[in-house]
Amino acid sequence: MTNTQTAPNRPRARGIVLDLIRATPLISRVELVGRSGLTGATITNVVRELIDDGLVHEVGRSESRGGKPRTLLELNAGAGYTVGVQLDRFSGSIVIVDLAGHLIGRTAIKGPGVASPHVALVRLARQIEALLTDSDIDRSDVFGVGLATLGPQDRALGTLLSPQPTPLWLGLPMAAELEKILGLPVLLDNDATAAAIGEYWVGGVELNSSYGCIYMAGGIGGGVVIDGEVYRGGSSNAVEIGHITMDAAGLPCSCGNRGCLEDFAGPTSIVTRALQWDGVRERLNLSGDIDDTVLDLALINRAAIGGDPDARSLIEYSARYLGYAAVSLVNLFDLERIVLAGPSFAIAGALYLPIVQAELDGACFARRAHPVIASLSASGADAAAVGGAVLVLRSELTPLLRRHAAP
Amino acid sequence: MTNTQTAPNRPRARGIVLDLIRATPLISRVELVGRSGLTGATITNVVRELIDDGLVHEVGRSESRGGKPRTLLELNAGAGYTVGVQLDRFSGSIVIVDLAGHLIGRTAIKGPGVASPHVALVRLARQIEALLTDSDIDRSDVFGVGLATLGPQDRALGTLLSPQPTPLWLGLPMAAELEKILGLPVLLDNDATAAAIGEYWVGGVELNSSYGCIYMAGGIGGGVVIDGEVYRGGSSNAVEIGHITMDAAGLPCSCGNRGCLEDFAGPTSIVTRALQWDGVRERLNLSGDIDDTVLDLALINRAAIGGDPDARSLIEYSARYLGYAAVSLVNLFDLERIVLAGPSFAIAGALYLPIVQAELDGACFARRAHPVIASLSASGADAAAVGGAVLVLRSELTPLLRRHAAP
Repeated sequence: MTNTQTAPNRPRARGIVLDLIRATPLISRVELVGRSGLTGATITNVVRELIDDGLVHEVGRSESRGGKPRTLLELNAGAGYTVGVQLDRFSGSIVIVDLAGHLIGRTAIKGPGVASPHVALVRLARQIEALLTDSDIDRSDVFGVGLATLGPQDRALGTLLSPQPTPLWLGLPMAAELEKILGLPVLLDNDATAAAIGEYWVGGVELNSSYGCIYMAGGIGGGVVIDGEVYRGGSSNAVEIGHITMDAAGLPCSCGNRGCLEDFAGPTSIVTRALQWDGVRERLNLSGDIDDTVLDLALINRAAIGGDPDARSLIEYSARYLGYAAVSLVNLFDLERIVLAGPSFAIAGALYLPIVQAELDGACFARRAHPVIASLSASGADAAAVGGAVLVLRSELTPLLRRHAAP
Repeated sequence: MTNTQTAPNRPRARGIVLDLIRATPLISRVELVGRSGLTGATITNVVRELIDDGLVHEVGRSESRGGKPRTLLELNAGAGYTVGVQLDRFSGSIVIVDLAGHLIGRTAIKGPGVASPHVALVRLARQIEALLTDSDIDRSDVFGVGLATLGPQDRALGTLLSPQPTPLWLGLPMAAELEKILGLPVLLDNDATAAAIGEYWVGGVELNSSYGCIYMAGGIGGGVVIDGEVYRGGSSNAVEIGHITMDAAGLPCSCGNRGCLEDFAGPTSIVTRALQWDGVRERLNLSGDIDDTVLDLALINRAAIGGDPDARSLIEYSARYLGYAAVSLVNLFDLERIVLAGPSFAIAGALYLPIVQAELDGACFARRAHPVIASLSASGADAAAVGGAVLVLRSELTPLLRRHAAP
């Protein structure tokens, strides 16, 4: 089986039409033309292709209002499934969604830590297979796997361009390797980008809105959606908000930059700071093992909610820096909404939200043009995994994947 | 005369076709289809409209290579003119370009300082009229004026949303006011956005490339172009790079944020710092009047080039912060190039360029995916004014403006 990545911006019309049919069940082709801005000919072709691929079916005709009755369309939810995976050193999640984007199964998995890529991917393949079995899904009904992980990446080739968590991952053809082990087609994408588009799909934001997603698992990433389309940039390595400079006099970061947001606000930095404070480790029962970072964050968060002043101060410090970065993101991308997504916001988002909102209210450059709303992801810890599954649904690969997935 | 602003993203096909014809003289419709990604029908319609509007003409047929000979197209350079204006508190520039984008006339003007908007706009109208007279251009041949100034703005309404330089400018319907005084249609846009698209037009960057423009006049702004299209964001107030936080513990900025890039790297901050250093004011003969900021920057720059260590240190401090911000811009927008544009880089860009390039080389997140090149604008101090003129050329307003401009 060959690796089957697409070029960055090809799936545009297909993605728009799928989004509209998902968001507006029983929509007609004429309404699709009106709401998409695409031509009638494009809608006709894309809808025919989606029907041929079994993703969409016709479900009857609308009442005539004087004109010709219109055929109505809806997603063919049971026609197949896609798998979404989020994985970084510290955390992981696998979901199965049907063609309407409904969640059919989910499981949280531990991040691979510093395991070798091969060991980590074999374990991941077994975990995917186990979830399919538990969910009663036959693998011949699976179109493919959307694998959402950290950047930078060469998305077209499906390879990683980061030496995280160990140098063995740098240059790894991760999509092709998992394909080989699992026997299902795999698409690679950035975890925060996936979370951003997943939020759109699950209805956490309005259609055609312009918003940013700040994604916090073990690290911090970002994704931007403008008028319903993912912002990709020149090489699909955009919105690396965890690595913008918050203090030029700050510490060097493994990314090559200095004083990065991750070093002020990321879960690793929160836990590192907690371990340096007298008595906090013992009082909050922190593990201190770097691979337990997200678990330790949960302990700090619980203590903060319970009134522990040190824990509260640790979370608030991170949240203020998150807020400063959110303002920079808004000032650069001119956004209407900031969504906080991923495992770490699923844990501590309620404490972050008011602090980030206060920064957005007071400091955004264009606040006289429009307000900026902060909100928590509708998908919680699974945001990137759901997004990975959605990216497969929206890709032009679906028919190709279907052929590959056929027995 | 009514104000005639367009919706943000309407001129897309027309702009793409004009760019291609400008960049490729003697291009055929078939080549336009191949290079634009637009359909044959769209190309046929857009080209017919451009010919009807007098912007493009047919200039003969290509040699037949077996097939039907192809009619060749080129811009009708002499069919009319547009005026571009850049204006902020500290600096200004007026240019006249023909339809091929050739520079026909230019003049540098002083910024309005804290003059009232009405006084400033009456003076600006006289300066525009004087340049038209000096350049032998009849106002009936002028399509319109592209007015590039600071943000935030309500671009659709042509109004300013900033209390800079005085609160009287906040809410000013600047495009409509200048239209009324001048008797020519006026389009309002952000100065840095204009500079970014102007750079594309004058050939300073490759067609379809993804780059950011950092624009420095009295303040610092930014513009991003992705695959040849301006990034607009949700409300056309994007890429305000002068107001991203470089140090969360920094001073409050008039924008509402803290520790903004402008406060570390902007011309005002360079001059303010110079005035605080012992003997620098006298030695470099600085005015110290805030409205002479750009002139004082020129004196500091000249001294730096001449070997004055204080002057060099002042410029280098600013350049390093510019470099940090350029890295953040690249990490967020995933760009291949950073163009330094505007009056202040026209003065001191040669000192900034190597420092910014060194930061880009060492600190960009996706440097393993592709290099990032820094370069100086091909338009020097006139970058935003040239961009303003180009924005009028690319807008769908051109035929409408032409009717308005007719006697």
